[in-house]
Amino acid sequence: MVTNDDGITAPGIKHLIEAIKPFGEVVVVAPDSPQSGMGHAVTISKPIRLEKIDLFEGIESYQCSGTPADCVKLAVDQVWHHKPDLVVSGINHGSNASINVLYSGTMSAAIEGAIEGIPSIGFSLMDYSRDANFNPAMPYIKKIVSEVIDKSLPTGVLLNVNIPKTDQIEGVKVCRQANAKWEENFAERKDPHGRPYYWMVGIFKDHDQSDDTDLSALNEGYISVVPTLFDLTAHQFMQNLKNWNLNE
Amino acid sequence: MVTNDDGITAPGIKHLIEAIKPFGEVVVVAPDSPQSGMGHAVTISKPIRLEKIDLFEGIESYQCSGTPADCVKLAVDQVWHHKPDLVVSGINHGSNASINVLYSGTMSAAIEGAIEGIPSIGFSLMDYSRDANFNPAMPYIKKIVSEVIDKSLPTGVLLNVNIPKTDQIEGVKVCRQANAKWEENFAERKDPHGRPYYWMVGIFKDHDQSDDTDLSALNEGYISVVPTLFDLTAHQFMQNLKNWNLNE
Repeated sequence: MVTNDDGITAPGIKHLIEAIKPFGEVVVVAPDSPQSGMGHAVTISKPIRLEKIDLFEGIESYQCSGTPADCVKLAVDQVWHHKPDLVVSGINHGSNASINVLYSGTMSAAIEGAIEGIPSIGFSLMDYSRDANFNPAMPYIKKIVSEVIDKSLPTGVLLNVNIPKTDQIEGVKVCRQANAKWEENFAERKDPHGRPYYWMVGIFKDHDQSDDTDLSALNEGYISVVPTLFDLTAHQFMQNLKNWNLNE
Repeated sequence: MVTNDDGITAPGIKHLIEAIKPFGEVVVVAPDSPQSGMGHAVTISKPIRLEKIDLFEGIESYQCSGTPADCVKLAVDQVWHHKPDLVVSGINHGSNASINVLYSGTMSAAIEGAIEGIPSIGFSLMDYSRDANFNPAMPYIKKIVSEVIDKSLPTGVLLNVNIPKTDQIEGVKVCRQANAKWEENFAERKDPHGRPYYWMVGIFKDHDQSDDTDLSALNEGYISVVPTLFDLTAHQFMQNLKNWNLNE
């Protein structure tokens, strides 16, 4: 199964379909409009539309009015009526490295796949442009998909793959999520009625100087592969917290 | 700072304000409408409204058109112009235990607080009703807040606190996120024009039989406290993945 968060007409998903076509039957279920920044949103208070469309030659495709996570849920329940062998999400136009994994619709679809027990990978290219060049990444994407099919992934682990914007990819590095964050500020404007509104603008700050992170790999021209969990438990702090006096 | 995802008029936030008032100056920045299921969505392609309102006696309060994560970002940048000492989110009407942490707007606000380096706690009561009884939980909430203020939390760790629906709370248990999931199906309907649409319906299934989980604690009538991370790296699988043949 292929999905994304930039919407079914984004060039990135077309490249991902091309990359995984050799591995088996491909079905696409993707949002009918861009869903960037949707995080792990799901649509519970509105109905969802799902429409079969003819967009990619020889590939069964559906556009969905829901979020990327909705697409995976709908694909499993309504389209396949069983679990696909692999969920790939992307190729996102823009980075989902470091803390962006939390805000990313692309990654939420991959996380949803992993929750369903399906081997899942999210792919993102560090280039927001619609004309982004996905070609240098294609052989690497095929290699990563082939290894996941070959070796499978442990339960509860998916891959967050980010690709640098370069014609000369140095290779692939397995790394950890960098400790970085967006430092937001909000641009205040006035509407024609004089009432204020705000646009979110942010600068991305890497607070992590070590060389084993995804951001460091990407900076050096490598594709970063971060094994990613959806068990958010801080196991290392558990014992300490048990010694707190939390009862009355 | 107090926020939530059920919207600023939900009874849960009023109880949370009551519980934390004794600890210092309280400022409320909360969504102007319910945001359940928003996950870690942020508003980047639309402007955001922020409006000062007079809702809670003696408490500076703002309603915001954005998501819970937006509320925290706006509070830091536009309302306080510095970081608050504590972010508390909730009290959510409904459980955010186990895998719900990923779908939860309540928890995304707390995670956003932790990303900002602020000690943060999400509180949820396992009762969706607007008439839910928050009173039995009040002394426990105060105790947990007091311990967090006293002992602080390690960088990158926040607390996910869930409260059982009972008049007889047994106490507080520190536990891990249970391995459970929603098994979705979609109810298909036809619109007046004969076109199909879908409602998401799900059954929550606990696949985790051990007694150290949040679901198990809640079942026994305890409040569950899960120390929660936003570093999603699967550190335990890292070495194994490094042995894969990911390069061409």
